[in-house]
Amino acid sequence: MIYISRQEHFNAAHKLYNPKWSVEKNTEVFGPCANENYHGHNFDLIVTVRGQPDPETGFVVDLKKLSRLIKESVIEELDHKNLNLDVPFMAGKMASTETLAQEIWKLLEGEILEITSFGQLHSIKLYETPRNFVEYFGPDPANL
Amino acid sequence: MIYISRQEHFNAAHKLYNPKWSVEKNTEVFGPCANENYHGHNFDLIVTVRGQPDPETGFVVDLKKLSRLIKESVIEELDHKNLNLDVPFMAGKMASTETLAQEIWKLLEGEILEITSFGQLHSIKLYETPRNFVEYFGPDPANL
Amino acid sequence: MIYISRQEHFNAAHKLYNPKWSVEKNTEVFGPCANENYHGHNFDLIVTVRGQPDPETGFVVDLKKLSRLIKESVIEELDHKNLNLDVPFMAGKMASTETLAQEIWKLLEGEILEITSFGQLHSIKLYETPRNFVEYFGPDPANL
Amino acid sequence: MIYISRQEHFNAAHKLYNPKWSVEKNTEVFGPCANENYHGHNFDLIVTVRGQPDPETGFVVDLKKLSRLIKESVIEELDHKNLNLDVPFMAGKMASTETLAQEIWKLLEGEILEITSFGQLHSIKLYETPRNFVEYFGPDPANL
Amino acid sequence: MIYISRQEHFNAAHKLYNPKWSVEKNTEVFGPCANENYHGHNFDLIVTVRGQPDPETGFVVDLKKLSRLIKESVIEELDHKNLNLDVPFMAGKMASTETLAQEIWKLLEGEILEITSFGQLHSIKLYETPRNFVEYFGPDPANL
Amino acid sequence: MIYISRQEHFNAAHKLYNPKWSVEKNTEVFGPCANENYHGHNFDLIVTVRGQPDPETGFVVDLKKLSRLIKESVIEELDHKNLNLDVPFMAGKMASTETLAQEIWKLLEGEILEITSFGQLHSIKLYETPRNFVEYFGPDPANL
Repeated sequence: MIYISRQEHFNAAHKLYNPKWSVEKNTEVFGPCANENYHGHNFDLIVTVRGQPDPETGFVVDLKKLSRLIKESVIEELDHKNLNLDVPFMAGKMASTETLAQEIWKLLEGEILEITSFGQLHSIKLYETPRNFVEYFGPDPANL
Repeated sequence: MIYISRQEHFNAAHKLYNPKWSVEKNTEVFGPCANENYHGHNFDLIVTVRGQPDPETGFVVDLKKLSRLIKESVIEELDHKNLNLDVPFMAGKMASTETLAQEIWKLLEGEILEITSFGQLHSIKLYETPRNFVEYFGPDPANL
Repeated sequence: MIYISRQEHFNAAHKLYNPKWSVEKNTEVFGPCANENYHGHNFDLIVTVRGQPDPETGFVVDLKKLSRLIKESVIEELDHKNLNLDVPFMAGKMASTETLAQEIWKLLEGEILEITSFGQLHSIKLYETPRNFVEYFGPDPANL
Repeated sequence: MIYISRQEHFNAAHKLYNPKWSVEKNTEVFGPCANENYHGHNFDLIVTVRGQPDPETGFVVDLKKLSRLIKESVIEELDHKNLNLDVPFMAGKMASTETLAQEIWKLLEGEILEITSFGQLHSIKLYETPRNFVEYFGPDPANL
Repeated sequence: MIYISRQEHFNAAHKLYNPKWSVEKNTEVFGPCANENYHGHNFDLIVTVRGQPDPETGFVVDLKKLSRLIKESVIEELDHKNLNLDVPFMAGKMASTETLAQEIWKLLEGEILEITSFGQLHSIKLYETPRNFVEYFGPDPANL
Repeated sequence: MIYISRQEHFNAAHKLYNPKWSVEKNTEVFGPCANENYHGHNFDLIVTVRGQPDPETGFVVDLKKLSRLIKESVIEELDHKNLNLDVPFMAGKMASTETLAQEIWKLLEGEILEITSFGQLHSIKLYETPRNFVEYFGPDPANL
C-alpha cells in the first residue's frame, strides 16, 4: 500500500458565526474570527490517495489527473470566494476548517474512483494558516 | 551598517475594486480578485531597520520592542479585518498590496525612532501569498 | 473523527549527557551534542487533538484556547530555558527530544479535557531542527 | 512507542517511460514527464524509525548514525544520478516516486537494525516536489 | 518606487560540461554535476518588477498578467526539459544557474513593458536548490 | 554582475549579557534572552558572493568550494557551541546576531578570494529564528 499526495491552494474569506446566537454571543465565543465584515486566509489543501501502483505506469494515481480533479471539483468552488456567502455546499454550515475538510472529502471521494482503478481517497489535510490545520480520514473508522 | 528584520503576520479579507468603474469593468480588470463578497489572505510582513549597533547592547533595535511596536501599530489594525471596510487608513484607497505596504511604512517610520536611537526604518516587505509579494523602501530615493 | 493541530515554538539550550558515564564516554556516544557548555535549538511543537466537532461551534477544540493552553503549560516552562538546568520536569532525565515529547504529553493530556468536551490529545510532534523530529501518540497503544 | 525521523535530500534526473509502449503512447500517458532527454527534481527523503527509547541514551536511534546510514546506503546511490540509467536497483523498473520509495525501504529496512536495537523502520516519505509526495510503510500491513 | 515579485517554478535536467575539456577535466572541475547522464532540480524563479503604482488599479503590474507572461515566455521553454539538449537559447552555453538567470532576463525584459506602462524588470532570482541560488539585476549597473 | 548565495546552518547556545551591568539590569534590558543558563537557536547563514561568471565554468564561485569554506571557517567554529564561552572570536563581545554577522564577515572576506578570482564577498545574512534575522554588507559603504 502506497500513500500519494498532491497539494493545492486557494484564498478565501470567511467568518465564524452561529446564526442561532446574538452578535454578542458570537463575538464572545469566536472573538476576532466573528468580525462582521469577514477576514481571510491562504488555505493549503493536501489530498492523499492510497492504493497499489498500477504495474503499467508505476502510479497509484496520475498526479496530473489528481491535480486537475482537485482544481475542477474543489478549487474553482472555493478560490477567491466568501465561504459564508458564495459556496453552495457550505450554505447553512459553520465555516470552520473542520467542516470544510469534511465537505471537501464528499466532493472528492467518488470522483477519485473515476481517475484511478488502483487507489481510493485516504485523507484531506487542510491548513487554514501554517500553524492551524485539520486532517480528516472520512466517515469509515476502518480507514484509519 | 546592519539591517535587522522582524517578521509578523495577519489574516485579512479584501477585494480589488475601483469605485469609479462599473462592476463589469472591475471584473474585467481584476478578475476573481474583484469578487463582490471578498476573499482573503494570510499576510506575512517583514519590517527591516538599518543602523549601527548600540555598543551597550549589541542591538540596532531591540527585536522584542520592534515586535511589540509592529503588533500594536499595524497588526491590531489589520488582523481579522476587512481591508476595504474596517481599516480607517485604507479608506478610499485601492486595497492592493502595493498600497498597503506604503501605508504600513507611514505607520511605522516615526514610531521606530521612539524605540531606537541607533536605527531607522529601511523597508516594508509584504507577502500576500507565498508567491506574490511587494517591497517598499520609503519615499526618499536616497534610501535605496 | 477530525484531527486538529496547533503549532507553537520555543528556543532552548541543552546538552546530551548521561551522569553515570565519564566525560569521555559521553563525548564518544553523543559527539558534539555533549558539548559541556551546551548548544541550542529553535524547537517547533505541533499538538494534535482528535474528536467530533461541537455542532454549536463547528470546533473539535477552540484553537485560540489550545494555543493559550500550550503557551501557559508548555512554552512558558521551556522558552529561553536550559533543558538540563532550568526545567523541573526534565530534572534527572536525558534531555533528548524523545524524552521531551513524552513529558509534554503528560503536561497536556489532562489539561486539554478542561478546554473541550469534544476532543482528546492525539499526538505531540516536536521538531528539534527542520530535519530531526519525533512524534509521540501517548502510552496507550489503542491511540495509534 | 516513539516515532523519530531524519530528513535528507538528493537531486536526480528521470523520465517516466514504459519500454513496452511506443513513444506516442508514452507521451500520451506521461505527458511532459516522458520527455526523451529527461527532466529532474530536488527530492526530499524523510526516514521514520519507531521504537522505545534506550534508557541509557534517551534515543530510539542515534540520528547522527541514521543520517550517516541514509547517506551511505541511499543518497550516494541516487544523488546527481539519472534514475533510469545510473541506478542498478531501479533497472527495468518504472522510475516513479512510488517505485523509488519502495526500493529505498528495501535498502534501509535491514540496515537500520545494525544501528539500533531499540527501533525498526516505520516509513519512507519521499517528496518529488513540495506539492507531490508519497509515503510507504513497508509490505507488512500490521505496520500501519 | 515599489518592488513587486511573482514566484514560479519548473523542473529540469542538466549537467555542467565544458565541451572544450576532456571528460576527466570536466569531472575534476564539476564533480558529480558533470554526471554524463544528467541530474536535475526543482527550480524556483522569482521575477521582480519595480515602478510606481498605476493610480487607477493600485498595481505596478497586474500579477495575473506577470504570472501568465512568465509561464508562456520562460516556464514553457524550461519545464520538464533538459537544459543542455532541449532549450534553444541555452545551446552552446554553460548550463549553470548564473547563465540561466541572465538568459531569463533577456526573455522577460522587453516583454514586461508590454504588460505594464508603470514598471520595468528589476531582478531575476533563481533557486537551483533551497540552499543554492543566484540573483541578477541586468546589464545596466545603474539598476542596482 | 551576478549575486550567488549558499545557505548553511548551525545550532548554538547563547545569552545576551553585558558584564558591566548588574544581573538585574541585564534582565531588565534583555528579558528572557539574559537567562543565566543560556538558551539556543538553529541559525541559518546565507553567504552571498558577487562577480562576473568565469567564461570557462559559468561560475562566479564554485558552490561546492564555497560550501566547504563556510563549513571549515565558520560552521566548525560555531556548531554545537556556546557563543559566550566556546568561541574565541566572540570573546568579550555581545553575543547578539548583529555582532555575529560582522564577525562571520571577517572570517570569510579574505578566504573567498582564495577560491575564486571572479567574485568577492557581498553579504552575510543570518537568521536567529525564522522571524528574526540580520544582513551585513561589510564595512565599505560602496558595497551597498
